Amino acid sequence: MLISLLRERAPEETRVGLVPDAVAKLAAAGHRVLLESGAGARSDFGDAEYLQAGAEIATDGPERADLAVSVRPPAGETVARLRRGAATMSFLPAAQSLDLVRQLAGGGIASFALELVPRISRAQSMDALSSQALVAGYRCAIVAADLLPRMFPLNMTAAGTLQPAQVLVLGAGVAGLQAIATCRRLGAVVQAYDVRTAAAEEIRSVGGKPVELKLETLDGAGGYAREMTAERARRQQELLMPYVAAADALITTAAVPGRQAPQLVTAQAVRQMKAGAIVVDLAAESGGNVEGSVPGEIVRIGQARVWGGRNVPGQLPGPASRLLAQNIVNLIGLITDAEAGFHADFADEIVAGTCVTYGGQVRHEATRALLQGPLDAERPAG
Amino acid sequence: MLISLLRERAPEETRVGLVPDAVAKLAAAGHRVLLESGAGARSDFGDAEYLQAGAEIATDGPERADLAVSVRPPAGETVARLRRGAATMSFLPAAQSLDLVRQLAGGGIASFALELVPRISRAQSMDALSSQALVAGYRCAIVAADLLPRMFPLNMTAAGTLQPAQVLVLGAGVAGLQAIATCRRLGAVVQAYDVRTAAAEEIRSVGGKPVELKLETLDGAGGYAREMTAERARRQQELLMPYVAAADALITTAAVPGRQAPQLVTAQAVRQMKAGAIVVDLAAESGGNVEGSVPGEIVRIGQARVWGGRNVPGQLPGPASRLLAQNIVNLIGLITDAEAGFHADFADEIVAGTCVTYGGQVRHEATRALLQGPLDAERPAG
Repeated sequence: MLISLLRERAPEETRVGLVPDAVAKLAAAGHRVLLESGAGARSDFGDAEYLQAGAEIATDGPERADLAVSVRPPAGETVARLRRGAATMSFLPAAQSLDLVRQLAGGGIASFALELVPRISRAQSMDALSSQALVAGYRCAIVAADLLPRMFPLNMTAAGTLQPAQVLVLGAGVAGLQAIATCRRLGAVVQAYDVRTAAAEEIRSVGGKPVELKLETLDGAGGYAREMTAERARRQQELLMPYVAAADALITTAAVPGRQAPQLVTAQAVRQMKAGAIVVDLAAESGGNVEGSVPGEIVRIGQARVWGGRNVPGQLPGPASRLLAQNIVNLIGLITDAEAGFHADFADEIVAGTCVTYGGQVRHEATRALLQGPLDAERPAG
Repeated sequence: MLISLLRERAPEETRVGLVPDAVAKLAAAGHRVLLESGAGARSDFGDAEYLQAGAEIATDGPERADLAVSVRPPAGETVARLRRGAATMSFLPAAQSLDLVRQLAGGGIASFALELVPRISRAQSMDALSSQALVAGYRCAIVAADLLPRMFPLNMTAAGTLQPAQVLVLGAGVAGLQAIATCRRLGAVVQAYDVRTAAAEEIRSVGGKPVELKLETLDGAGGYAREMTAERARRQQELLMPYVAAADALITTAAVPGRQAPQLVTAQAVRQMKAGAIVVDLAAESGGNVEGSVPGEIVRIGQARVWGGRNVPGQLPGPASRLLAQNIVNLIGLITDAEAGFHADFADEIVAGTCVTYGGQVRHEATRALLQGPLDAERPAG
């Protein structure tokens, strides 16, 4: 295939869809990559590295491409440049991008959404939500260590002993476990809580101590947690309060893809934290696990400072892009035939699950329902 | 003794000379502590904690005190409030504070300088330079981890492997060793260099790999390095250059107390670092180990960002103050008789070495020489 690597248009997006190593792998598999000049600059990958890996610089990549690759959904004007029958691969929050989905379907463009890769073991190497969560979880731990006005490890010195910092992690998915592991590496004492049954063992496996609340567990599909009732949420907030109050640093990572993040910690609980305490809310962009957190800002609540995450994987653009690019290379392999031509086999549940539009149709059911629902009447197509 | 704990006057000083725990220890030893209200606020120690530890709040502490304790040297107006025969204990860079030293001597005030505690094993528990270097070294590692746009540890994931970051630490004293240990905890690969013979073994003991240059070692008094010739310095800069160029993060911690820090790394070497590289110069305030570093700022040199340290221990005011306060408590024990009265025994080399002024005399020889030298003629006393 002829693959066009798009330069990200959003000023806050530092990542890139393919890194030079990934371009070399695609070239070895028989693909050609057309590069928008400067596509990797914000991740510290220069044009020269891409050229060395076999990419070509082109200004007409979208017009020529069989596949356009990007991190964020391509802009409408870029989609307009793609030829009928071409494809896109990127994050594509379909339910929040209905105009774009209409344009893709209307233009006969196939589109594959990275966040829709199913959570099955064969798809692990394509799971961009997991790879980006790993980077984000590490980053949250480093941010907490950077902001906390005390040291994480126990220190026994000639001038006495400094006690280790107490860290509480809420949400022990990929990001939470990585945050726990990183805080433990730095020597903090880490407690963690997650609503899923399997979490306690996973928390222990990375050196954390599971918090056990007298509440039923909530296991959802694909290893994610399912939503809880308002009554249970309120009770959980109450039961967590003493743990929050005792923590030097609180890191929250509970997110349910495509949905509002659950509010785990009230502002009232944060106000009980001690002077100098730090809160890191990875979920700030999707509504926040902590009441009052603001994405991209540090706000003061009581005596604590609350850091709200904003494109957290993009704060480490190099590693985030490396992993994302490998996810994309692996997914490209799945929609390619032996001659490196485009071939989407919808009998494959990964291909089927990831595809939003194809052949003029919206294939993603939830999105199709939204487009046919009342929203459709309000928003004229085109 | 009646001990007056001063509130720091310098806006950039976040530390405090005594923490509540230290006040409790002094009270147990028979001392009384008079607190300037808010003295611990910037280290997150409130007045209430001090009161609970046995301190009293007083506005006339300096007038009543036998001993005034602070982190930075007391201001001239504070010294003017002390009675003849009283003492001060603080950092006191005597050679750079000649007016203050004259005032202390003229006022009949005894003064003890924390940075003059000799580096002998009996004095380890009073060694404030070491305790603050420990905190600063940790902080340097965290700053590097925070600024570097990649992850420190090796990560083997379903989407491929992320290589660990390469860190180079120059100067392996207390701060350097703590920086090495902290970077290692986080999983980075760490190389380190120091001019002293014993350094290689110490670097290995905290998980670093010693860089071996074909240069003679430079061992000075008290475990510090001695100064080097200009020719050797130039040669060392050259030999270090490939190591600097290969590093993702460079941390420099080479300082010789009371003297200009040696320039270990030229701007030319920094310009050879890769895109996104980070330099952390702990010695920026004393002239800098890295050419072009600016205290308290991040400057760009080539493709690297260079962070210049400014009151780095004060960036973790809680632990820095805890250790400093214990150093001070231990040193107070040494200048106190059995009835908790002031008693300086100059037969003790720690007391003798640390004392700057006493009984109207300047006892610190190097300072006395400066006061009697040409500077004295230029700067009128008072």
